[in-house]
Amino acid sequence: MKRVKLVVAYDGTNYCGWQVQPNGETIESVLNRHLSSLLGEEIVVTGASRTDSGVHSLGNVAIFDTNTRMPADKISFALNQKLPADIVVQDSCEVPSDWHPRYQKGRKTYEYRILNRTFRDPTRRWNSYFYYHALDIEKMQKAATYLEGEHDFKSFCAVGAQVKTTIRTIYHCKVIKENDMITIRVTGNGFLYNMVRIIAGTLIKVGAGDIVPEEIPIILEKCDRAIAGPTAPAHGLTMIGIEYEEVE
Amino acid sequence: MKRVKLVVAYDGTNYCGWQVQPNGETIESVLNRHLSSLLGEEIVVTGASRTDSGVHSLGNVAIFDTNTRMPADKISFALNQKLPADIVVQDSCEVPSDWHPRYQKGRKTYEYRILNRTFRDPTRRWNSYFYYHALDIEKMQKAATYLEGEHDFKSFCAVGAQVKTTIRTIYHCKVIKENDMITIRVTGNGFLYNMVRIIAGTLIKVGAGDIVPEEIPIILEKCDRAIAGPTAPAHGLTMIGIEYEEVE
Repeated sequence: MKRVKLVVAYDGTNYCGWQVQPNGETIESVLNRHLSSLLGEEIVVTGASRTDSGVHSLGNVAIFDTNTRMPADKISFALNQKLPADIVVQDSCEVPSDWHPRYQKGRKTYEYRILNRTFRDPTRRWNSYFYYHALDIEKMQKAATYLEGEHDFKSFCAVGAQVKTTIRTIYHCKVIKENDMITIRVTGNGFLYNMVRIIAGTLIKVGAGDIVPEEIPIILEKCDRAIAGPTAPAHGLTMIGIEYEEVE
Repeated sequence: MKRVKLVVAYDGTNYCGWQVQPNGETIESVLNRHLSSLLGEEIVVTGASRTDSGVHSLGNVAIFDTNTRMPADKISFALNQKLPADIVVQDSCEVPSDWHPRYQKGRKTYEYRILNRTFRDPTRRWNSYFYYHALDIEKMQKAATYLEGEHDFKSFCAVGAQVKTTIRTIYHCKVIKENDMITIRVTGNGFLYNMVRIIAGTLIKVGAGDIVPEEIPIILEKCDRAIAGPTAPAHGLTMIGIEYEEVE
């Protein structure tokens, strides 16, 4: 028996998110089905980030246990032969049997992309959120700096999410503009449910002039979801990857 | 009667190219149908670039004649309400009644995108060509410079294409690498059938070491399609736009 770690990229457009659902195809269910068929045993993967429907990934991490004699680093190539074009494993390797993608300490990075122009661009419609009104990038950048550090992010967590603590550390929150694309890049030690999308929705409100950057510390202090901005649409969000502290 | 110019962006993935075909949906047929419905008269558009099946565009240009009283600059907004999500008009304006997008002198720009990495990226699979083997960007850049200027591009034209002359001027041919994405950006006074895709296929051969940059002038001189590289796949190609000499 060995434990194998996968790095998984996917276009989330056609999936009901990561986690197995009773109705609808998910990334996890597709991986389970094709891994079981490839390795000839029942495989159940466990993922690091249970991304929502429509969210994309370049480097989500999953593990599974297997009795296969196939070398762990060859599994990515064999599995990619079977997977649909919108899910591509980027790496596979063996990890210790107690290694777990959610309990291991790591730095997660997400990007939220906002296409800020007058007309929609059909070639970029699947992985960016189209926003028509001009956004003030400097205000967004200033607001983002207030989110960096250790804070209680309860105002930036979907109501009803069950977690022990809503305290998280954001190492970086950068807002980058390249031509008509605004990218919010956030790295943290963990994220609450919908946290990056609520950060994006709030920074868009800042860019539009509805919230001033200096209100961000107040929004954090109040610990009230109702005073942060809306949850930005899923399709603008991409899980970029996870850097774990220990090298496996 | 007035003549209206449209700037049209589209994701070519689900279309049989620009030009009306007996079987299969095309960009032109979708525009004709929705413009006719919007304006209440039979509309037939004429396009600048008859892009192939799978090729994308950010700024193809088309014209049509109409009796509508709707101001030309409002047509883009009204038409976008009707068009599917993969075709978006970026601009509409009135032009003189003898203005023609193919006969008017202009500079056309195309980009061919090559995703050069070990594993496919599912989030970028529709608008870039995945190429596994490492490409030597400096060789590609050197080869590209030989294509700039006025040349007979017969070697870079699909066999059987009927044109008066195969002489064209390329103003710029730049090869840009940003992380794992190589973009070939070409601006010229006009392009032969499949010309940009054959340039891309040839520059990939150069990057892979199968053709040395100094062979490009010889390939041009020979005027023989068989000695240039293969035609790179359609989905890597995007028509960026056309700058016309006269301002309308």
